[in-house]
Amino acid sequence: MIKIALVQGNFWVGNIEGNTARIINAIDKAYKEKIDIVVFPELSVVGYPPQDLLLKKYFIKENIKAIHKIASYTKNIIAIVGFVHRAEKEGSIYNACALINKGKIIDVYCKVNLPNYGVFDEKRYFKPGRDISAYSFKNYSFSANICEDLWRSSYVRLLKDKKFDFIVNISASPFCMGKLSLRKEILSYTARELGCFVFYCNLVGGQDDLVFDGGSMVVSPEGKILKFAKRFKDDFIVFSLPARKVKSYHIKEVPEEASFEALSLGINDYVRKNGFKKVIVGVSGGIDSAVVVSLAALTLGKSNVYGLIMPSRYTSESTFSDAKRICENLGVKYSVIPITPIFDAYLKALKNVFKDLPFDKTEENIQARIRGNLLMAFSNKFGYLVLNTGNKSELSCGYCTLYGDMVGGFGVLSDIPKTLVYKLANYINRYSKKKVIPSSVIKRPPSAELKPNQRDSDSLPSYDILDVILKFYIEDDLSLDDIVKKGIKRTLVKKVIGMVDRNEYKRRQAPVGIKITPKAFGGDRRMPITNGFSH
Amino acid sequence: MIKIALVQGNFWVGNIEGNTARIINAIDKAYKEKIDIVVFPELSVVGYPPQDLLLKKYFIKENIKAIHKIASYTKNIIAIVGFVHRAEKEGSIYNACALINKGKIIDVYCKVNLPNYGVFDEKRYFKPGRDISAYSFKNYSFSANICEDLWRSSYVRLLKDKKFDFIVNISASPFCMGKLSLRKEILSYTARELGCFVFYCNLVGGQDDLVFDGGSMVVSPEGKILKFAKRFKDDFIVFSLPARKVKSYHIKEVPEEASFEALSLGINDYVRKNGFKKVIVGVSGGIDSAVVVSLAALTLGKSNVYGLIMPSRYTSESTFSDAKRICENLGVKYSVIPITPIFDAYLKALKNVFKDLPFDKTEENIQARIRGNLLMAFSNKFGYLVLNTGNKSELSCGYCTLYGDMVGGFGVLSDIPKTLVYKLANYINRYSKKKVIPSSVIKRPPSAELKPNQRDSDSLPSYDILDVILKFYIEDDLSLDDIVKKGIKRTLVKKVIGMVDRNEYKRRQAPVGIKITPKAFGGDRRMPITNGFSH
Repeated sequence: MIKIALVQGNFWVGNIEGNTARIINAIDKAYKEKIDIVVFPELSVVGYPPQDLLLKKYFIKENIKAIHKIASYTKNIIAIVGFVHRAEKEGSIYNACALINKGKIIDVYCKVNLPNYGVFDEKRYFKPGRDISAYSFKNYSFSANICEDLWRSSYVRLLKDKKFDFIVNISASPFCMGKLSLRKEILSYTARELGCFVFYCNLVGGQDDLVFDGGSMVVSPEGKILKFAKRFKDDFIVFSLPARKVKSYHIKEVPEEASFEALSLGINDYVRKNGFKKVIVGVSGGIDSAVVVSLAALTLGKSNVYGLIMPSRYTSESTFSDAKRICENLGVKYSVIPITPIFDAYLKALKNVFKDLPFDKTEENIQARIRGNLLMAFSNKFGYLVLNTGNKSELSCGYCTLYGDMVGGFGVLSDIPKTLVYKLANYINRYSKKKVIPSSVIKRPPSAELKPNQRDSDSLPSYDILDVILKFYIEDDLSLDDIVKKGIKRTLVKKVIGMVDRNEYKRRQAPVGIKITPKAFGGDRRMPITNGFSH
Repeated sequence: MIKIALVQGNFWVGNIEGNTARIINAIDKAYKEKIDIVVFPELSVVGYPPQDLLLKKYFIKENIKAIHKIASYTKNIIAIVGFVHRAEKEGSIYNACALINKGKIIDVYCKVNLPNYGVFDEKRYFKPGRDISAYSFKNYSFSANICEDLWRSSYVRLLKDKKFDFIVNISASPFCMGKLSLRKEILSYTARELGCFVFYCNLVGGQDDLVFDGGSMVVSPEGKILKFAKRFKDDFIVFSLPARKVKSYHIKEVPEEASFEALSLGINDYVRKNGFKKVIVGVSGGIDSAVVVSLAALTLGKSNVYGLIMPSRYTSESTFSDAKRICENLGVKYSVIPITPIFDAYLKALKNVFKDLPFDKTEENIQARIRGNLLMAFSNKFGYLVLNTGNKSELSCGYCTLYGDMVGGFGVLSDIPKTLVYKLANYINRYSKKKVIPSSVIKRPPSAELKPNQRDSDSLPSYDILDVILKFYIEDDLSLDDIVKKGIKRTLVKKVIGMVDRNEYKRRQAPVGIKITPKAFGGDRRMPITNGFSH
C-alpha cells in the first residue's frame, strides 16, 4: 500500500521564509500521519506567479537555500515540492519540482511545457525541461510533472510509453469561470489515456489579479474523480493505493457561487497579504457598491469595513436611503459627507475660465473625482484600503471616471459583467439568509446620478445585450462582422466596439482587479492604447 | 551595381490601411529613383508592437490582404516588407518579411529568434522560424533577417557558412540610453564576422511607452558605419554596391540630447496618433513641470500648450512667479486657479470625522488631488490631453500622490531620473538659446509645497545618491547586500528599497510613460504588488 497526501496550501508570492515554514510543517504532519508521498503545488517555495522577482539572482538564491532547508527537514517520507531550479553552469532557471527523501534532493524535474499566453509569461523567465520524470516506490512506478505539461497531448503521449501506475501533477492553475470543468476533462482524459491514477495538487489563494481555487483531486484510471479537495480554501487530502471502492464526485460550478467564493478569497488575500486590516467602500445606493460592501463585510467581518456615503444634489432620496440601509443591514459603520459644497467651490474656481459653457461630462466628472478624493482622504487618514466598485461592463465602455469612481487599491468587480453583478446581489441575499441588499437597489434602473434624471441607458445599450457584445468582442476576439452575424445590429456593435477601443487608456490606470472570466483586463489582455486599427 | 534603399518610416500600430499606403508610396518613389532593393522595418504593415491585436484573426487577415496589395503594386524592384505571416495549415503566425518582386511574393522569411524579455512578448504570439533566408540578385548573394536574429551569435554562425555579399536586417528596436552603441557593436561584429555589408533598417516613431529612434545604417565588412540615417525622424537612405570610398561615421550619444529627442518624438506621436491637438500641463514653478511644459511647447508649438497654475497657501511667492515666468518665456497661455477655497471646502466637509487629528499626508494629498481634478476638468471641457510631470525618482519612491500629481494621459518624465531632469532643463535652455527655464527654478531645493517649509530632502536622500541606488536596484536588479558593497550606507539602501517595493501599487495606476532607461516601469518591469519578499 502507498499513501499519498496533497497539500493544497496558500503559498505567498515572494514570501520564501513563510512558505518554507509552511512546507516543513506540512511534511512533518504528513510524516506523523504515515504518508509515503507528500505533494505540494507548483512553485510553492516562491509562490505563483513570482513575475520579475525571478530576474533577481538573490531571489533565486534564497529559493535554492529554502529547498535545501526543506530537504534537510525531510525524514523517511518522499516530498514533491515546486521551486525554481537554477542550472549551475549556464545560469538558466527552470520551473521545477524536487523529489526529496531522507534529507536529500533525489531528483529535479523541470517543466517541459511553459505557458506563455493569457496571464502567463513563463517563457520570459524559464528554460523548458526536456524529459519526463520516472520514479518508483514500493513497487509503484510514477511520474511527476507540472501544470501545463498535462495540458498538451504530445506530453501525454510521452508518458504513455512508460506505463506508470500513477502521475503526480503539481499546479498553479488560476480560477476563471469554466476552468474547473476544463481541468476535470484534461485530467480525466490523461488518466484514461494512460490507464493510471492522476494526483492533481493545485495552489489556493489570491495574488493580485489571480485567485487560485484549489480543487485538488485524485482521478481514477477510468477518469472518475475519487477525491476532491475544497475549493477556495486550504486543504490536505490523503488517498491510498490500491484504491478502495469509493463513490465518485460529480462536479458542477454555479457561476455566481464560484464568483462569490473567488471574490471573497481575492479580497481577503489582497487585504491580508498587503498588511491592511480595514477597507472602505464608497456606498452610493447603487447595486455595484452594494455588492462590494456586502462581499467585504461577509469576508472581512463587519467591523473591518467602513462605508462612505457621498450624496450630491443629483442623488435621489431613495438611493440615499438605500445606501444607509445597506450599511445598516450589514452592520458596518458609515459616514455621510455631502459633496455639494465642495462641488460648488470647484464651480466657483472654474467660473472665470469656463464662463457660460454648458454643463457637460466635465461637471459630472468633477463630482466623481470629489468622491475619489474623499475616499482617499479616509484611506490616508485611517489606513483603510479603498475597494473599487466598478464592474467590467462599465470599465469596458469607459462608462466611469478616471480618478473618480475608478479610484481604489483593488478592483473587486472589474471582471464581473453587470448582468453577473445582479446575480451576485441575489446570491448574497440568499447566502446571508436576509435581504442585505434591498429589492429597490436591485430593481432601480442603473444611474450614475451625476446630472438630473440620468440613466445608464442614456449612454449604453441595455446590459443584457451589452454584456453579450462585450463577451464576443473581448473574450472571443470576434470581429464586427462576426458579431453582426450573431444577429446584433451593426450600428450597436460598432458603437460598443468603438467605446471599448477608445477607453484602453482608462483601463491602463485602473486598479488591479480579480480575474473571473476567461479574459480579464490587465495582463490577460494586452492592448495598445495608441491603436490605428479601424473596423 | 546594385542600389539599396532603407525606408525608415513611422509605421503606426494597428493602422494597416495607412501603413500600406505609406509602403506603396515609398516603393513607388524607390522605383522612380531606380533602386534595386527597397527595405522596410520589422512588421511595417501592422506597426510594432501590435500586442494582443495579434490574437484577433481578422486583424491578421487584414494584414495578409495588405501584403498582397503591396505586392500587386510592386513593379520591377525588390521590396522587403515586414508583416505577419500565417501558416495556412496550422494557423500559427510568424513575425516575417516578404520578398516581393513584379507583383508577387517571392519568398517569406520567418524570424527565428523571438525576444521575450524586457518590453518584448514575441513568444506570446509568434512561432519561431527555422531557417535563414538566401537570395541572389545581379550576382550578389544576400540574406534577410529580422531584428533579434542578429543579436544571437548562434544565428550569425549559421549565416557564416553561406558567404553572403550582404545582409539585410529589418528592425523595430526601441530607444533606450546606450542602445545605439550596443546596436553599433552588434552590427559591426556581424559585418566583420561575416566579412560582408550589413544593411540595417530600423523603425521610427512613438508608440505608447516606446520610442523607436531610427538610426538605420549601412555597415562595411570592416565594421565601419558608411551611412547613417537620421535619428528620431523619418528618413530614406540609399547606398550602392560596390561601395565607393566614403568617410565612416563616428557615433556618440549625449544622454540629455538623446532623451530630449526621444521625449519630443514620444510626446508628438502620442498626441497625434491618439487624435489630440492640444495638451495641458500643471505648472508649479518646480523643475519637473518646467521641463515638461517646455518640451511640449518646443514639440507641439506654443499655441498647442496650455499651462495651469494652481497655487495653494503653501506655494511660495517665488515659485508662483517662476511658474508664470516659464509660461511667459515659452509664450504659452495659462490660467491661475488658487486651490485654497476648494481645499477649505474639503477640510470643512471632513471636519466632523477628522475632528482634531493632526495635519498629515492626508491633507497634503487632498491638495494634490484637487489639482488633479482641475487639470482633468480642463481636459474634459476643452479636449486637452493632460501631460503628467512626475519623474522616475519620485515614482520609484512613491513620493507622489495617486490621482493627484500622478494624473495624466501620458507620463513624459516617468522614466527620467531627477538628476537627468536637471540636465534636460539645462539642455532645453541651450537648445532654445534663451533662459526658458529660469535659474531660480533650477537652483531652488525641490519641494512639493504641500505643507509649510516642506523639502523633498525631508523624506528622500539627496537625488545624487538616490538615483544611484535606484539604478542599482531597479535597472541592475542588485540586492541590498550588493548595493551596500558599492559603498552606500545600509540603512539608506534599505530605506530606499523599502519605498520602491511598497509603492508598486501606485505605479500600477500611473499613466503610460516614455521608456528612456534600460529598464522602465510598466511592461518592462513586471513586479507583483502583493510581494512577501523581504531583504
